[in-house]
Amino acid sequence: MVYLTRIEHFNAAHKLYNESWSREKNESVFGKCANENWHGHNYELYVTIKGKPNEETGFLFDVKKLSMIINSSVVEKLDHKNLNIDVGFMKGKMCSTENLAIEIWKQLEQNLPSDVQLHCVKLYETPSIFVEYFGE
Amino acid sequence: MVYLTRIEHFNAAHKLYNESWSREKNESVFGKCANENWHGHNYELYVTIKGKPNEETGFLFDVKKLSMIINSSVVEKLDHKNLNIDVGFMKGKMCSTENLAIEIWKQLEQNLPSDVQLHCVKLYETPSIFVEYFGE
Amino acid sequence: MVYLTRIEHFNAAHKLYNESWSREKNESVFGKCANENWHGHNYELYVTIKGKPNEETGFLFDVKKLSMIINSSVVEKLDHKNLNIDVGFMKGKMCSTENLAIEIWKQLEQNLPSDVQLHCVKLYETPSIFVEYFGE
Amino acid sequence: MVYLTRIEHFNAAHKLYNESWSREKNESVFGKCANENWHGHNYELYVTIKGKPNEETGFLFDVKKLSMIINSSVVEKLDHKNLNIDVGFMKGKMCSTENLAIEIWKQLEQNLPSDVQLHCVKLYETPSIFVEYFGE
Amino acid sequence: MVYLTRIEHFNAAHKLYNESWSREKNESVFGKCANENWHGHNYELYVTIKGKPNEETGFLFDVKKLSMIINSSVVEKLDHKNLNIDVGFMKGKMCSTENLAIEIWKQLEQNLPSDVQLHCVKLYETPSIFVEYFGE
Amino acid sequence: MVYLTRIEHFNAAHKLYNESWSREKNESVFGKCANENWHGHNYELYVTIKGKPNEETGFLFDVKKLSMIINSSVVEKLDHKNLNIDVGFMKGKMCSTENLAIEIWKQLEQNLPSDVQLHCVKLYETPSIFVEYFGE
Repeated sequence: MVYLTRIEHFNAAHKLYNESWSREKNESVFGKCANENWHGHNYELYVTIKGKPNEETGFLFDVKKLSMIINSSVVEKLDHKNLNIDVGFMKGKMCSTENLAIEIWKQLEQNLPSDVQLHCVKLYETPSIFVEYFGE
Repeated sequence: MVYLTRIEHFNAAHKLYNESWSREKNESVFGKCANENWHGHNYELYVTIKGKPNEETGFLFDVKKLSMIINSSVVEKLDHKNLNIDVGFMKGKMCSTENLAIEIWKQLEQNLPSDVQLHCVKLYETPSIFVEYFGE
Repeated sequence: MVYLTRIEHFNAAHKLYNESWSREKNESVFGKCANENWHGHNYELYVTIKGKPNEETGFLFDVKKLSMIINSSVVEKLDHKNLNIDVGFMKGKMCSTENLAIEIWKQLEQNLPSDVQLHCVKLYETPSIFVEYFGE
Repeated sequence: MVYLTRIEHFNAAHKLYNESWSREKNESVFGKCANENWHGHNYELYVTIKGKPNEETGFLFDVKKLSMIINSSVVEKLDHKNLNIDVGFMKGKMCSTENLAIEIWKQLEQNLPSDVQLHCVKLYETPSIFVEYFGE
Repeated sequence: MVYLTRIEHFNAAHKLYNESWSREKNESVFGKCANENWHGHNYELYVTIKGKPNEETGFLFDVKKLSMIINSSVVEKLDHKNLNIDVGFMKGKMCSTENLAIEIWKQLEQNLPSDVQLHCVKLYETPSIFVEYFGE
Repeated sequence: MVYLTRIEHFNAAHKLYNESWSREKNESVFGKCANENWHGHNYELYVTIKGKPNEETGFLFDVKKLSMIINSSVVEKLDHKNLNIDVGFMKGKMCSTENLAIEIWKQLEQNLPSDVQLHCVKLYETPSIFVEYFGE
């Protein structure tokens, strides 16, 4: 079993705001992250798949195809977007990095060929904070 | 002459949008950066000052004080904010990284002690793009 | 289950020296690291917790609170300190990065709320050497 | 159980080319990586071992010795070399990063003292692509 | 005057070998870099231009266009190539990083619009070695 | 004119303490950096030389020789040392990063061949603070 990771990037705006709460409660729970006028990040996305290398190519999976799938199913939907407003798969969800990593996993799982095993989605929100999700 | 650099960080939302243009023109010039719902970045800010080290301390300037001045005069006004809406010193200006670096220079120059010489403001918008401004 | 990591920094002096050995044996085992006048490092500390995101906040745990706990229970006791002399929880222990990671785990475990599960302490001694400890 | 990682570097040339295929098939499968005149990379190698720290030294294993073993058994055989032509342990194998990580594991396992447990070989091919192998 | 930098990447093979010298002399001067079977690098290319931001856009120059020009005039000619064999503008020149930076400058200068002022080409050969060229 | 930079590393302990002041004054001026039991850093040293590449080699100067000179004249005297006690060329000087960069310049200037022009010494004290010195 070998693990292969591809790193991609996207920039996005978001805020942390629970619509069923008052503005005061949002500000006391989320602090600056609740700023109604949004803030944003350069996100760094690590996608790890696992499996056995193919004997003829030496590849677990073509990393250029992996990059294309990550871009078409995830990055293009998130890059230069507003996570709370513009992104179908985040609708009705709190835009925390935790939830974003889980939803990115779901998007990738639907779009990767069935013989490719997704292992981990790791998402840096800032250079000092990241989240990992292994599908369970 | 010694040059001392302190690195700080902030996250912010913005869009590139010239209000005197049509939406079509904005989209053709700024592409994804004109997204009306904003996008955002982790900015990395390098502030460089220059001068002669003090004989008694060995310091050009106390780097903790430098950090406090950068934070109070710049970072706190930008972090978790919307550059187009929330930031007094960006009002009426296009929110490009070029203009942001120039305005950060002006803020720092007003707030640094008169015996400290500002040398350079360097601002990373993403890990692949940065702007430098030397005050002229 | 989601994994959330927060990265913090501290600077410290230490030496590797077993008091029950001769100076010659210390130098032959620890080389330059036994220098009696100390040497030091910029340590980079990764703290990973795991759990299920809260439905109302989308957070596994408030990362600002996590940062405050790491700082009050670990970083403030280590930053700009001498690991062999100044740090209560390293008394009587060899100041290797291995032992430091284990003791940092113990400090964190005592200070994190009981509903937060510590997963990993990862500690960079230099940009080329790091240690990980998972609590067992 | 503590995990200790040492990072080393090497530069090498390679191409991805299956000799039992036509040039056309190689180019359609491997793209630019099949360039007959070679291309190359700065590889970054993370070697992780695991075990219990020694009570007298606080060390899992002397990191300087670990570095020497990695260098003599792996880095010196790969650095400034052509992976397809110059490297005994890659003979007859496709020079993918996946296969290179597996063969590096084998070299290390033969050369590490029997009381040191190898845990992971992680190999960056570019800053955006890496492979991990855990020996099974 | 503002300085704008865009960072791009390419991988390539090369060797350092002066054809007018014996193999012995090449090996004594260039060491491992003279390996006849090539070696290679992940190069990191920083291109800096300078000028005054446009009032309507806030841009010195559209960074996406800058990236496209760097890619079409330089990166596509170098990426996954052999610098000694495959690259027209390196023919007859020693493939040192110094010479490569100078020739990249010439390519960029010919392909940038006449109103854009090139300021610096900076080229990392490894994470520990880089070269800068300012056009004179 | 081409600029060539080589990056090296060293770890050291130091404190900021002016012997002609009281302990109270030292603590009020230098804060945690005055800790009498020392603290330490992983320093990152960038040495830049400038000149014209040699026509036969393509080199400004052999980067391996540059590395050897930096190591013998600077790194070996500083690595795993106490800057206040162990280092001849820092005797009687405040151990600030500013002064350390200036003294490293002097050491390099004495040890580089007379036909090599030193351009800049850049010294990272932490990943957020660095100093540059250009010899005047």
